[in-house]
Amino acid sequence: YYCIGEISQKGDAWRRRRFHAHRREREREREMAELTVILYMLTISLFTATVSASPCPANGLPLVRNISELPQDNYGRPGLSHITIAGSLMHGLKEVEIWLQTFAPGTRTPIHRHSCEEVFVVLKGSGTLYLASNSHAKSPGKPEEFRIFSNSTFFVPVNDAHQLWNTNEEEDLQVLVIISRPPIKIFMYDDWLVPHTAAKLKFPYLWDEQCYQSTLKDEL
Amino acid sequence: YYCIGEISQKGDAWRRRRFHAHRREREREREMAELTVILYMLTISLFTATVSASPCPANGLPLVRNISELPQDNYGRPGLSHITIAGSLMHGLKEVEIWLQTFAPGTRTPIHRHSCEEVFVVLKGSGTLYLASNSHAKSPGKPEEFRIFSNSTFFVPVNDAHQLWNTNEEEDLQVLVIISRPPIKIFMYDDWLVPHTAAKLKFPYLWDEQCYQSTLKDEL
Repeated sequence: YYCIGEISQKGDAWRRRRFHAHRREREREREMAELTVILYMLTISLFTATVSASPCPANGLPLVRNISELPQDNYGRPGLSHITIAGSLMHGLKEVEIWLQTFAPGTRTPIHRHSCEEVFVVLKGSGTLYLASNSHAKSPGKPEEFRIFSNSTFFVPVNDAHQLWNTNEEEDLQVLVIISRPPIKIFMYDDWLVPHTAAKLKFPYLWDEQCYQSTLKDEL
Repeated sequence: YYCIGEISQKGDAWRRRRFHAHRREREREREMAELTVILYMLTISLFTATVSASPCPANGLPLVRNISELPQDNYGRPGLSHITIAGSLMHGLKEVEIWLQTFAPGTRTPIHRHSCEEVFVVLKGSGTLYLASNSHAKSPGKPEEFRIFSNSTFFVPVNDAHQLWNTNEEEDLQVLVIISRPPIKIFMYDDWLVPHTAAKLKFPYLWDEQCYQSTLKDEL
């Protein structure tokens, strides 16, 4: 027989079990919620950490930046040191971009052209500018040679094929480069006789590749 | 009576006179033509001389130029040394312009704004950038202060009122300045509380005045 008391005891025990089960469920739910919040915050802080460590911050950088603390790399060109001091993909500029570049003795740019304006300020060393001022001919042809030196400045006429060469065997060549309408679109020539129409477009250029990719991702 | 001979002699004399008159006319014409050519060539050579001696040559300059040989002036701002390294009115650039500026201790720019991009590279010394990032308010208001130092870089957001001040009492402040869309159009404020709408346009700016005038003359 079933004593009511027992039943009720049974019932009490059942209710107690249900109550404890409910409490455990609520606890689990609370734990899950807490875990979700923790995971969410972890994700956010990881994301924030990624953004502030990213070489392509565009926003959120300090206004005044120490040039010696900026990202510096050879971007696959041995003997080159390139720093984008202020730029399009890296810092959100639209009209100008400034690079600090150092060429080890004997190193050079590819022969190339671009439709933007480009001004050089030579900070250290010396070298040679090769310039073919015949963008209307079939190919660049034999370039003119110009000696460049510390504290000199020059600009490359729009669309003229050119090459900068550290022809000084003793010393690094350091230049500040200013271009308009960034990011730069470069057409490269294997030699001076390659027809203008056969020059190879390299876009994004080496130092723009990483931030160009993350800009694309941001837009998706 | 009239002898045919005489008539003919008369006629000959008349023809001879006519012939000599014609020859004199032709000589005068030739002389005038020669004089015109000489005057024309004189004008051209004078013009060429003027162009090469002018501070606004735009063309005909050597490609590689020694910065220490470029025109340098304070353009009416005591304690300033300004050199246009490569520019619009002086060198025919259309998209970028580069200045080398040195501020004696205690000297500063006016409070001003412009719609072009502007990047600074601090080459020597230190100082303070005052920046009011509220171009949408009624007036600039109290600016933020940023310490700038040798080997630092910063850019001024488009249309933000700002002022650069050599607050270092010991040392010159030397900066390289890059602007887009030259020649620069500057709006100046007597103080930070002047409404944006009351800022005074100064165009052409001090160092552009001379070459702006000669550009206008060339266009007439």
